[in-house]
This record gives sequence, C-alpha cells and structure tokens, in this order.
Amino acid sequence: MDISVVNALTYEEFVNLFGNVVEKCPIISAAIWSHRPFKDLADIEAHIMGFIHSLPDSGKEGILRCHPDLAGRDLQSGTLTRESREEQSQAGMTTLDSAEIQHMYRLNSKYKERFGFPFVICARLNNKADIVRQLNERLKNDRAAERERAIEEVKKICSLRLNNIVLSDIQTKL
Amino acid sequence: MDISVVNALTYEEFVNLFGNVVEKCPIISAAIWSHRPFKDLADIEAHIMGFIHSLPDSGKEGILRCHPDLAGRDLQSGTLTRESREEQSQAGMTTLDSAEIQHMYRLNSKYKERFGFPFVICARLNNKADIVRQLNERLKNDRAAERERAIEEVKKICSLRLNNIVLSDIQTKL
Repeated sequence: MDISVVNALTYEEFVNLFGNVVEKCPIISAAIWSHRPFKDLADIEAHIMGFIHSLPDSGKEGILRCHPDLAGRDLQSGTLTRESREEQSQAGMTTLDSAEIQHMYRLNSKYKERFGFPFVICARLNNKADIVRQLNERLKNDRAAERERAIEEVKKICSLRLNNIVLSDIQTKL
Repeated sequence: MDISVVNALTYEEFVNLFGNVVEKCPIISAAIWSHRPFKDLADIEAHIMGFIHSLPDSGKEGILRCHPDLAGRDLQSGTLTRESREEQSQAGMTTLDSAEIQHMYRLNSKYKERFGFPFVICARLNNKADIVRQLNERLKNDRAAERERAIEEVKKICSLRLNNIVLSDIQTKL
C-alpha cells in the first residue's frame, strides 16, 4: 500500500472506502479525513482511536449500540453489513443449530438488559466457545468497565478491517 | 405524542426510529439514548445538539461529509436515504432539467473543493432559487464560519425530521 494513494482520495472516496471500519459510524472516518495527510496506516488508526477516546461516555455507548448482536436478528434476516457478515461467519455464528441460536439470544438479551448496549467482541479473533465464555465473564463487569472493555474490541475490529481494506480492497475499489 | 412511549423504547427501537435524524449518523441518537428519560421532544433535540457541539471541528465536518450532494449522484442513482429523497424532492431537486443539474454539479464541486465537505442546507425550508443563491453566498465564507453555518442547517434538518417522526411515524412503527 502506498499511503500517498490514500492521501489523494477525496472525502467521498475516503468515506466510501473506510466508512465502515467502525460499524455503521461513517462519521468517524469522515471526521478524521480532516487530519490528512496520514503518515501510514497506523496513523489513520491512531486518529480513529483518538476520535473515539475524545467522545463522552454516551458517544462510546452510541458506537456500541450501532453494532448488531452476534447470531442475532440481522444475521437471521440477512441485514448485516458485509464486514459483520464475514466476521460472524468466521467465528462460526452462521452455522449454529437452533439450540445454540436460542442460547446466544438469551445471553445477548441478558447482556443488553444489564448494560444498555450489545455485546461486542472481535469475532475474527474468537471462536464460538470463546464468545460464549467471554460473554458470560463480561456480564460480571460493572457498566463503566464493560464500556471500556467493549471499546477495546471495537478497536481490534477496526484494526483488522483497516488492514483488510488496504490489503485487498484498495486495488479493486479505486 | 406521549414522551413516555419514547422513554420506554429499547435502544434498538430508539435507533431504528430516530437513527437518521442526523443523516447517516445513527451514533448520535444511539448516544443520547443514554440520557433518557427525556422530558419532551425539545429535550431530545437539546441532547442531540449538545452532542454535536461537544464534537471537535473534525467531528462536525464528519457529520457534514455524511450528507449527500443536492441534486447529486445519490439522487440520480436512487441511493439517497428516504428522508433526503423526500427533502430534495420538496425543494424541487428531483425535477431539474439537465442544464440545472449541470449547474448544481458545478456549484457543488466548487463548494466541496473549497471547504472539503458538501453544501448542506435544510431543503424543506428552501426552494431551488434559494438554494442556488445561498450556495453562491456561502462560498464566500471562510471554512470555520461555513462549518458552523452548515451545522446550523443540520440542526434545522434534524428538528424537522424529529417532528416528522413524532407526528407521523410513531403510531405506525411501534
């Protein structure tokens, strides 16, 4: 990847390419375009993380609430974003049997009831068993700690999505 | 409208209903759900405006960059959000002849070139002639003044969308 290619993008091209590195939050990539030229991919990532950390707690919770449930309604009805669908598929969420789907539904509901935002985890780095175990564990956190924990997962997802775009998409989309 | 109905919504229902009151920025309604119970519609609006004003300049520019051009590519290709399509239609943007479309294209390009974000105006409160006149006038602003000017328009759009939802959609969607 040549960062000069990225730095030459109009905001429309930039948002088109990077708009979903944080799920359903194109405002974030649209905002950090203001800080170009970027030194490298890590610099883009740092600006995204900086933007997220500048948000009030409600804003961080807002980011989390833009995420779909794992193995939830959006997956069942085919309304996941492309990125989420691929990630949930890699974590085995698309091949659950009906008892497992029901189990995930109950855990997700319990989590959302407790925290007021959905359980977010970097699905590409976890399998089915990891996800269930971590969901049960993280249910024990208090809300503030869990908000920060979930934002750490948003960062991991973002980092992998950024890398994926630069490695695979930039040649074909531009 | 009974505000208690809104206050009883889950975050998923709330974002589903209010997610596009700021164009393509569901994070904003998702964030302010944290502040419920709301006193009334004006209180919801005040929280949205408070959230927008808490953003750094890049974040405000990010909001603007999530907006489509008036009479631009999204309108021509049918990819506007429902709300934008209705608003652009009310302002006469859907019935321009090809010379007028070209004129808008040139003006929009000039504006984006100058400011790095698209021309945003509350289309429901302006007709075709107003839009062209104001676009030409606002091109004379400096970037900081124009950013604030455009955010004022985002507020007007948001306010009308909120009212529209509460008046017409809440009965049918819930």
